[in-house]
Amino acid sequence: MGNKISVGLLGFGVVGSGVMQIIENNQAELIHQLGTEVHVKSILVRNPAKSRNVDLDRTRITTDPEIILNDPEIDVIIEVMGGIDEAREHILKAFSAKKHVVTANKDLVALHGPELQEAANQNKCDFFYEASVAGGIPILRGITGGLSADRIQQVMGIVNGTTNYILTKMANEGMPYEDALQEAQELGFAEADPTSDVEGLDAARKMAILGRLAFSTDIELEEVEVSGIKNLALEDLQYGDQLGYTMKLIGFAKCHDKEVEVSVEPTLLSKEHPLADVKNEYNAVYVYGEAVGETMFYGPGAGSLPTATAVMSDVVEVIRNVRLGVNGNIVTEPRFKKELKTPDHRFGQYYLRLHVKDEAGVFSTISSLFHELDISFKRILQNPIKKHEVAEIVLVTHQTSLGNFNKALNQLESLHDVLDVKSYYKVEGDVEHVAGTTETL
Amino acid sequence: MGNKISVGLLGFGVVGSGVMQIIENNQAELIHQLGTEVHVKSILVRNPAKSRNVDLDRTRITTDPEIILNDPEIDVIIEVMGGIDEAREHILKAFSAKKHVVTANKDLVALHGPELQEAANQNKCDFFYEASVAGGIPILRGITGGLSADRIQQVMGIVNGTTNYILTKMANEGMPYEDALQEAQELGFAEADPTSDVEGLDAARKMAILGRLAFSTDIELEEVEVSGIKNLALEDLQYGDQLGYTMKLIGFAKCHDKEVEVSVEPTLLSKEHPLADVKNEYNAVYVYGEAVGETMFYGPGAGSLPTATAVMSDVVEVIRNVRLGVNGNIVTEPRFKKELKTPDHRFGQYYLRLHVKDEAGVFSTISSLFHELDISFKRILQNPIKKHEVAEIVLVTHQTSLGNFNKALNQLESLHDVLDVKSYYKVEGDVEHVAGTTETL
Repeated sequence: MGNKISVGLLGFGVVGSGVMQIIENNQAELIHQLGTEVHVKSILVRNPAKSRNVDLDRTRITTDPEIILNDPEIDVIIEVMGGIDEAREHILKAFSAKKHVVTANKDLVALHGPELQEAANQNKCDFFYEASVAGGIPILRGITGGLSADRIQQVMGIVNGTTNYILTKMANEGMPYEDALQEAQELGFAEADPTSDVEGLDAARKMAILGRLAFSTDIELEEVEVSGIKNLALEDLQYGDQLGYTMKLIGFAKCHDKEVEVSVEPTLLSKEHPLADVKNEYNAVYVYGEAVGETMFYGPGAGSLPTATAVMSDVVEVIRNVRLGVNGNIVTEPRFKKELKTPDHRFGQYYLRLHVKDEAGVFSTISSLFHELDISFKRILQNPIKKHEVAEIVLVTHQTSLGNFNKALNQLESLHDVLDVKSYYKVEGDVEHVAGTTETL
Repeated sequence: MGNKISVGLLGFGVVGSGVMQIIENNQAELIHQLGTEVHVKSILVRNPAKSRNVDLDRTRITTDPEIILNDPEIDVIIEVMGGIDEAREHILKAFSAKKHVVTANKDLVALHGPELQEAANQNKCDFFYEASVAGGIPILRGITGGLSADRIQQVMGIVNGTTNYILTKMANEGMPYEDALQEAQELGFAEADPTSDVEGLDAARKMAILGRLAFSTDIELEEVEVSGIKNLALEDLQYGDQLGYTMKLIGFAKCHDKEVEVSVEPTLLSKEHPLADVKNEYNAVYVYGEAVGETMFYGPGAGSLPTATAVMSDVVEVIRNVRLGVNGNIVTEPRFKKELKTPDHRFGQYYLRLHVKDEAGVFSTISSLFHELDISFKRILQNPIKKHEVAEIVLVTHQTSLGNFNKALNQLESLHDVLDVKSYYKVEGDVEHVAGTTETL
C-alpha cells in the first residue's frame, strides 16, 4: 500500500471526469484526511480516440477491463460506466479479486444490490453507492449513520430532477406538460428519450435503494408501485394550488410493524410540507424517524461534480478502512422479512376530479357512495362547465384506506351520472388525526 | 468486552432521559447493528431523590462521578450534564481512563473542543459531539463524511430554534418582538432568561464548531462576531418582506484562501434561498461546497428524543469502532492556520434604514457619499413621515466590502441632514455577480 492508493476507473463520462477532477484538484485535502495520495492508475473507456475535456495521460487509458480488474496494485474500483450486465460482471470480478467497489449506478444497485452486497461480504470488501441516490446529497450516510439509532417510519423523496423541473415550470409559469418537457430537454435537464424519468422508473430505483437502507429489509425493484407525470393536466395543478397543495412526484417508502409499502406517484403535497419548497432540478429526501421526527436532506440530484463528490466520499471511506484494515465490516443483512402492505393497510388522503351531469341530486348520489365506504371529504369544489350541461367536481378526502378508495373509484365509474373520472392523486402533508393509523403521519 | 457494552451516563435531564429511552426501546436494532447489547450501567445525578418520568433501577444511580469514571467495565461515557468546568474535568478523566466520550454539550465543545480532542487523540479515544449542533440533524457527519472530498466554502445555519420561532411569529403574524418572545417562553421554546438565545451567543457556539469542522482549522469562540435579534423592529421585517426578503438569525462561516470569517447576525435573506422556508423552532444548515454546490440539512434543533438520536448515532459509531479496534483514528488536526478576514475582505449586501430631513437635495447628498465609496444601490424606498418633516429612506446595496459599508455608516452619522440611522442588516441570497469576489456566493 505504501503512501499511495491506486484506484481504477470504469467509465469516463460525465461522472467519471468529475471524479478525476476532484481527485486532481483536492489532492492536498485527500492527503490530509487519509495520510496517503490517491492515484487514478487506469481508466476503462469504450473509445480511446474520443476527444475529452480533461487532459488525460493516454498511458492510463485502456479498453480492456481485465487490465484493471487483475491489477494487484489497484485497491479500489470506481464504477461509473452505467448499464447493467457488463457493470455487474466487472464488479463481481472486482470482489473476487478482493477489490473494494464504489458505484454511482442506481439501475444496477436497484436491480442487483443485494447480490453484489453478498459478494462484497463474502470477500470482506467494501461496497458503497452513495452517489446512486440523489446525486450530491449524502442521504445514504444520513440514514445509515446519522439516524442509525432511530427507527425510521417513512421516507419521502423528490429524487428525480427532470420531473421536478417540469413540475416547477408547470406550477410557476402555467406551462403545459409538453412545453415544460421540451424546455427541460433544451436545457439538458431531460434526455431525448425521457421515458425513464417521466414515467417514474428512475425515481422507483432510488426508492428501492432508500427503502432497503431505511428499514434494513429486502425490497425488490418490482415491488415499487410506479406512476409517472406523463401528460399531467395543468388543471389539476391549478386546483391543487387553490386548495393549498403543490404537485410533486414523490417517492414513498413506509414501514410499520414489518409491513412495507414503496411507491412513486404524482402527489398533491401541502405547501406547508418541507418538500413543497424544493424547486427546479433540485432533489430532497424527507425522513421521518420515530425519535428524531422530521428531517430533510436537500441538494443537487445530478451533475458531474455533485455526483462525483458523493462517489469520492465513498472512496474516502473505503481508503480509511483500508488503512485501518477494517473493510467489509458494515452489517448489512436485512433485519427482518417484510410483508408488502395490502391496499387495506395503506392509508392516505386522495384528490379526485370528476365530470358529472349537471343535474339535481347527482352530488348527493356521489356523497352517499363515499359515505357508505366510510370516506369523508375535507374539501369540495364544484363548478359548472358552460355549454356542456356538465359539472366539474373536485374532492379531497380525509384519511382513508387505499382499498376503500379503489372501491369508490370502481363504483363511481359504474354510476351513469358520472361522465368521467378525469384524474385522482394522492394528497400528503396535511396534519390529520385518524383513529387506527399511527402517529401524525 | 463480551456481548455487552456498558456505558455511563453523566446527567439525567432532558437529553439523558431521551438517551435512556432510545437504548431501552431500540435494543433489538442496536443488537442488529452492533452485534452486542448496549447497557447503561451507571448514571450520575445531582439529586437522587428527584422524581423522574423514567422508571429507573435505583442501584444504577450515583452522585459520585468517580464511580463511573473509574469503572473498568464502562467503555463509553455519555456526557449530557451540561455546564463547563465540571463536565470538562469529567471528560478529561474519562480520556485518561481510556474511555470514549460522546457529548451533547455545545458550550463545552465551543470553548474547549480542541483541548478535549487533543486529550482524546493522546489516549486513542473517540470524542464525538454530533448532538452539540442542530439537535437531531446529522450535520457534523454530513460535513465530515458526506462532503469529505469537497472543499466547503460557506456554511450558513439557522441553528437556534428560539430565535427562529420568534422571527417566524413576527413575520407571519406581525407580532412585535416582546410578544413573540413571551409566546415562545409560554410554549417552552424560550427559557425564562433568553439572553443566550436572543443575543446570538448560543448560535455563535454552534458556528464555531461548524466552522472548525467545515474548514478543518482552529476557530475560537471569541473570534465569532455576534449580534442578536433583541428588540428587532417589526418595520424592518416588513420593509424586508416588501423587498423580497425574510429576516432570519443566520450563522455564517466562510473560508476563501485560508481567510475565514465567522459571524452570527440578523439577516434579510432572499425568499428564494433554501433557508428562507425554515420556520418556527426548526433548524437547518446550508452548506456550499466547491464541487457539490448547494446542500441543506433540515430538522429539529432541540428536544429530548431528537437530540438523543444524535447522541446515540455517535454511541453506535464508538461501539462499532470498539468492536473493530479502531477508536481514536479520525484525523482531526487543523489542516492550515487561518487568518481572520479583515473588513476589506468581507463582502456582502446591506440593508439600511435612515431618517433624514424631508428637504430637496438630501438624497443627492447621501447618494454621492455612497458613490464615492463605490457602493451602488440595488433597491431604494423613500417615504415621507407625516407631521415630522422627516423622510424615511430604505436602501439595499449591491455587493460591497464591509470596510466601505462601515465608512459609509460613519460618514452618514456626521451628515447633519441625516437625523438617525435607524437600522442596518446584512442581506444574503440575492444572485449577484461582482468583479473581485469569488464565484456565485
